[in-house]
Amino acid sequence: MHAAGTTLVSIAELQERVEAILGRAGLNPVQAGAVARVVVAGERDACASHGLYRIEGILRTVKAGKVEPGAEPVLVEGEAAGIVRVDARFGFTAPAVELGVPVLAERARRLGLAALVVNDGTHFSALWPEVELVTGQGLAAMVMCPSYATVAPSGGTRPLLGTNPFAFGWPRPGRAPYVFDFATSVAARGEVELHRRAGRALPEGWAIDAEGRPTTDPAAALAGAMLPFGGHKGSAIGTMIELLAGAMIGDLTSPEALERLGGTTLAPGHGEILLAFSPEAFAAGRPGDPFARAEGLFEAIVGQGARLPSQRRFAAREKAEAEGISLPAAEVARLDRFLALGLDAVA
Amino acid sequence: MHAAGTTLVSIAELQERVEAILGRAGLNPVQAGAVARVVVAGERDACASHGLYRIEGILRTVKAGKVEPGAEPVLVEGEAAGIVRVDARFGFTAPAVELGVPVLAERARRLGLAALVVNDGTHFSALWPEVELVTGQGLAAMVMCPSYATVAPSGGTRPLLGTNPFAFGWPRPGRAPYVFDFATSVAARGEVELHRRAGRALPEGWAIDAEGRPTTDPAAALAGAMLPFGGHKGSAIGTMIELLAGAMIGDLTSPEALERLGGTTLAPGHGEILLAFSPEAFAAGRPGDPFARAEGLFEAIVGQGARLPSQRRFAAREKAEAEGISLPAAEVARLDRFLALGLDAVA
Repeated sequence: MHAAGTTLVSIAELQERVEAILGRAGLNPVQAGAVARVVVAGERDACASHGLYRIEGILRTVKAGKVEPGAEPVLVEGEAAGIVRVDARFGFTAPAVELGVPVLAERARRLGLAALVVNDGTHFSALWPEVELVTGQGLAAMVMCPSYATVAPSGGTRPLLGTNPFAFGWPRPGRAPYVFDFATSVAARGEVELHRRAGRALPEGWAIDAEGRPTTDPAAALAGAMLPFGGHKGSAIGTMIELLAGAMIGDLTSPEALERLGGTTLAPGHGEILLAFSPEAFAAGRPGDPFARAEGLFEAIVGQGARLPSQRRFAAREKAEAEGISLPAAEVARLDRFLALGLDAVA
Repeated sequence: MHAAGTTLVSIAELQERVEAILGRAGLNPVQAGAVARVVVAGERDACASHGLYRIEGILRTVKAGKVEPGAEPVLVEGEAAGIVRVDARFGFTAPAVELGVPVLAERARRLGLAALVVNDGTHFSALWPEVELVTGQGLAAMVMCPSYATVAPSGGTRPLLGTNPFAFGWPRPGRAPYVFDFATSVAARGEVELHRRAGRALPEGWAIDAEGRPTTDPAAALAGAMLPFGGHKGSAIGTMIELLAGAMIGDLTSPEALERLGGTTLAPGHGEILLAFSPEAFAAGRPGDPFARAEGLFEAIVGQGARLPSQRRFAAREKAEAEGISLPAAEVARLDRFLALGLDAVA
């Protein structure tokens, strides 16, 4: 049932294989399990740049000593009631989020809303896996984190902000949630790199060079800065993320994360903030069911020919859940090599 | 000290004059006081389209029976601890926000974060006056509300979303806060109207016509739909605002607000959500002072020649506070006419 030269694996089989690779590289079970779930989710949803492709960067970050592979994240005691704080202890962010979300959900149901703060995490992924952990609890979610400084503020000339993703989710009973997750830069840094490798000019408005002048040359852009999406509006949102998910939570801003890491090729260390909202609590005593009313809005969007964000991702997921994930022979060989060599497989 | 034909008034004098006009039009003291504070703040900050200019629309909305001028907003009892709900009772939103913010601030300090929900309000203003009430309490603020349906979702063909403003504030001890407040459409509807009156074409990318085709004709745009800022990203944020500040809080979405109002020339009725965050609570136990670290970020933005949002507004405020506000003779005559005629002054 699959093309010659490819191997069909179930999601559970792929999870087991990736966990084994990460364990071989020195991650303890709590790190390996959570990180593998994020990587496998990306592959399952056909997000090529957030799937198995990420394993190499994860191993390189471990090998460089920029993440603590044996960290056990801990819930911090003594916080204000609306704040759930998990100290990731310089391990990856994913296991800290998995530890915190059930507590976050209990608080949000009781108080109406609550925040999960992850401190001292190492982040390599999109935010939608984290958003979907919260929507899976029947709660709306807003998630933000800084990155490392590669984006100039609107009107500026040098990198200062990160690509600072902004993500949101709304639970849809009985189906995949409404989820968006995007960089607050015009494009992701990887897209600029892809243009450079292909020898293609960037679209206008993506970047400035090291002197702060607009450029369409990808090499000049990588030496300069990317631009925020939507001009001053995206720049303002990126700044908000530095404040709420950096300075406010006592964790690194993007310029600080870049300074600590010393470059942009490994996974950066920084914090993250996840807000959870209970639609039942917010709608209590008011007319109408919030979930049914949201469905009416989604129908009106789709009904005029527009798409909901993540639709392509959810279609890929449905296919992977039904049929498994097809891995090319080269990918299988790469995974085998990671498993055999551990950290010796990467530079 | 002022140009011939103009009258110089203090902020307090202008507040008194606008309150008197609103009282003459039938607003009770709690409505008149709060609405006048918002209008005068707009004039003080030289936001021409959100200052005294707004009085006529307010009076027309009262005259049309679309707002309850004698409403007394009330705090709703029995909510979850993190939710402060004020029922505006179909009066203006401003007095409901003034009633709720001190309670919101107390909750945010205790819990770390809290939400103020205003239901059944009538909204005519920018969101920054509301943001600044929260930052004035030493808290960070995120504020959202729907509007009426005039914006097509990205990839769509018809009005569905409102211009749905998104606003944020961060307190800066001893100086004006960091504040942004923008429509999630490319442009405000008023800007399209100004192009129509001036007979000028719109920039590309602002709008589509009634058939969903891109247009630069302002009349065709007003008959069609405006577009979200930043393509699918702004569209996603606008949708998030419909969900959080509409469906979730049991209040109208933008298509529902348009249907209830029947047109786009009066102030719309809908809800609003204000989130407040205590930086002290979120930073507790972590290294660094969040306010000092935020100042470092602002210095880095300004230091590379970029501007902070609202800088122009705060400069105008400083001038108005020191020197008063200069009103042209025609504006004084207009105010005198409103005071003399009340609702008979408007159509």
